Amino acid sequence: MERRSFIKHTGLAGILAAGSAPAFAQGSPSIKWRCASSFPKSLDTIYGAAEVMAKTVSDVTGGRFQIQVFAAGEIVPGLQVADAVQNGTVECGHTAPYYYVGKDPTFAFGTAIPFGLNPRQYDAWWFYGGGDQLFNDFLKSYSITSMLCGNTGAQMGGWYRKEIKSVADLKGLKMRIGGFAGQVLTKLGVVPQQIAGGDIYPSLEKGTIDAAEWVGPYDDEKLGFNKVAKFYYYPGWWEGGPALHIFSNTPKYNELPADYKAALLAGCHAGNTHMMAKYDAQNPGALRKLAAAGTQLRPFPRAVMDACYKAALDLYAETSAKNANFKKIYDSMLAFQREQLLWFRVTENTYDNYMATAGQQQRAAPAKK
Amino acid sequence: MERRSFIKHTGLAGILAAGSAPAFAQGSPSIKWRCASSFPKSLDTIYGAAEVMAKTVSDVTGGRFQIQVFAAGEIVPGLQVADAVQNGTVECGHTAPYYYVGKDPTFAFGTAIPFGLNPRQYDAWWFYGGGDQLFNDFLKSYSITSMLCGNTGAQMGGWYRKEIKSVADLKGLKMRIGGFAGQVLTKLGVVPQQIAGGDIYPSLEKGTIDAAEWVGPYDDEKLGFNKVAKFYYYPGWWEGGPALHIFSNTPKYNELPADYKAALLAGCHAGNTHMMAKYDAQNPGALRKLAAAGTQLRPFPRAVMDACYKAALDLYAETSAKNANFKKIYDSMLAFQREQLLWFRVTENTYDNYMATAGQQQRAAPAKK
Repeated sequence: MERRSFIKHTGLAGILAAGSAPAFAQGSPSIKWRCASSFPKSLDTIYGAAEVMAKTVSDVTGGRFQIQVFAAGEIVPGLQVADAVQNGTVECGHTAPYYYVGKDPTFAFGTAIPFGLNPRQYDAWWFYGGGDQLFNDFLKSYSITSMLCGNTGAQMGGWYRKEIKSVADLKGLKMRIGGFAGQVLTKLGVVPQQIAGGDIYPSLEKGTIDAAEWVGPYDDEKLGFNKVAKFYYYPGWWEGGPALHIFSNTPKYNELPADYKAALLAGCHAGNTHMMAKYDAQNPGALRKLAAAGTQLRPFPRAVMDACYKAALDLYAETSAKNANFKKIYDSMLAFQREQLLWFRVTENTYDNYMATAGQQQRAAPAKK
Repeated sequence: MERRSFIKHTGLAGILAAGSAPAFAQGSPSIKWRCASSFPKSLDTIYGAAEVMAKTVSDVTGGRFQIQVFAAGEIVPGLQVADAVQNGTVECGHTAPYYYVGKDPTFAFGTAIPFGLNPRQYDAWWFYGGGDQLFNDFLKSYSITSMLCGNTGAQMGGWYRKEIKSVADLKGLKMRIGGFAGQVLTKLGVVPQQIAGGDIYPSLEKGTIDAAEWVGPYDDEKLGFNKVAKFYYYPGWWEGGPALHIFSNTPKYNELPADYKAALLAGCHAGNTHMMAKYDAQNPGALRKLAAAGTQLRPFPRAVMDACYKAALDLYAETSAKNANFKKIYDSMLAFQREQLLWFRVTENTYDNYMATAGQQQRAAPAKK
């Protein structure tokens, strides 16, 4: 007892003298969590969002709540983060919920569905459109509590060895693509392939596959896909604004003091903002490099987009008919999206489109034949 | 001594027993700050960003760091927040830095310049494009430390009693508009008027002014401008992504313990995300109401946009020639913007434009003759 109060008192005096040193919260428990990321460190922007989250949590708690981030495979394989969180193997994980559509397609709403919300619209749906509540209600049976933590922005439509000029060009196309997007493309004759990131390059090079999607210029350029596939298509209509989340084990989360819960949420806000901002800052330079190295940028033809859009709506109708969880969230998100599109097409899109072609900027455009 | 250690010990025991009660940081100092908002409570989304910030700061510090938000005029007039922060009248304020372009036009980069960055691009510039460093360097002589905390999204172009069909229609137009936008429009013959929010409606009604800009559907609809001006133009090219900031008095900020500094930053991240998300969630419904009440939505003609764009570039060249602070940040932001536009015109804009017109959504469009 005596020693304890002495330490506390010294600590307090030290703090009062220290000025801007951390105001250590002696009464607060020291808590250490482990966060399993679904991503390798080489995807530094996605992986980095969890580190921004963890640093913020540590910073605002004066180092009392520490979350250590582990890359995919260090503790848990990247695609098993949800299981590890559910089982309590780790207290939390940073993941793309749509990796778990095999358990239930409803997981897709934690990341993106084809022709879904863009990043700003996702934030709005999550915080003010019922998304947070609906998705966390769904996750209750998995003992997972989810907080929004990151977005890549609209991804690219991937790398193709041959041009896609019509819907017919999709028939028989062997493409590295997964999840819902793969199911949509199957309806149009694509043969989806599940291939890990590191194996995409040799598969494209050998011609084992005809096409592959990954993320966007910054991540794609590092893997050198431009050397084995000439055509780089956009937009990645299956990921118009894919979100990442921190999944926490709900019993472990419930044990946290209220201020640590708040710190975790604040950390996720920081991770969310930083990940999008960092991708936006990094992608343009990578796109320039790719264009300079001869990559041919191509928009998907309108007819291809329309066929994919129709196939996606068919898939949603089929899935909704079979799965009440999916239907409930899909209906919410779709209604919200209709309103968002109504609004964005007015001032937001008009502004962006004007700026895309305004005066000087036009002359700084990339090679885009 | 005896009593103090007893209290501490009881406190600790209480916490350990309490489970999810706040882990009060007994060693941390209790600090109270006042935050002067530049906005009235009626602009609940902008005003609310400061409240989200303050709540987050309180939550993550277990209530030890309290920031009380005051509406414009309660302690300080809305347009004098920077002075009050600089003088230490209040420890911090939530404001739109471009209100202070009268002191130095460089303040504009804290909010927006005409034909500037959209909200995502602003975040990217601020956190990963040097914006934070450059703007805070500029603010050093004002003893102000600035943190990004909110964005309205691209605003609307305002309310007009008559249609704007050509550049000639701008000549002699008496319009409620301020700052840089007013200076740009002056070059095209507009006569800018400085009118407080509450006086816009009667001025438009009486015809004392011909046009007025405010924010966007959610805020504009509350003030009823649609009843006194028929035409609602877009986009608000002078505010493509206007940012708000928390200005802190630098000496007061420097006195904060490191964890409270981190809490303030985390609070600003929360405010930043929530403000944009809330506006996006609220604007569509307000736009619907306005359209249903007969408001005529109009895009500015391309020739008008081009004339304004050229006038803005002229103004930036003139201002850069006179002001080294302005030139330094303008050059940074412009270079960053060129890269952003190059990137956004590829997958982001293409995705947004497709979704704006895709299948079903088209049928849900508002009346837009």
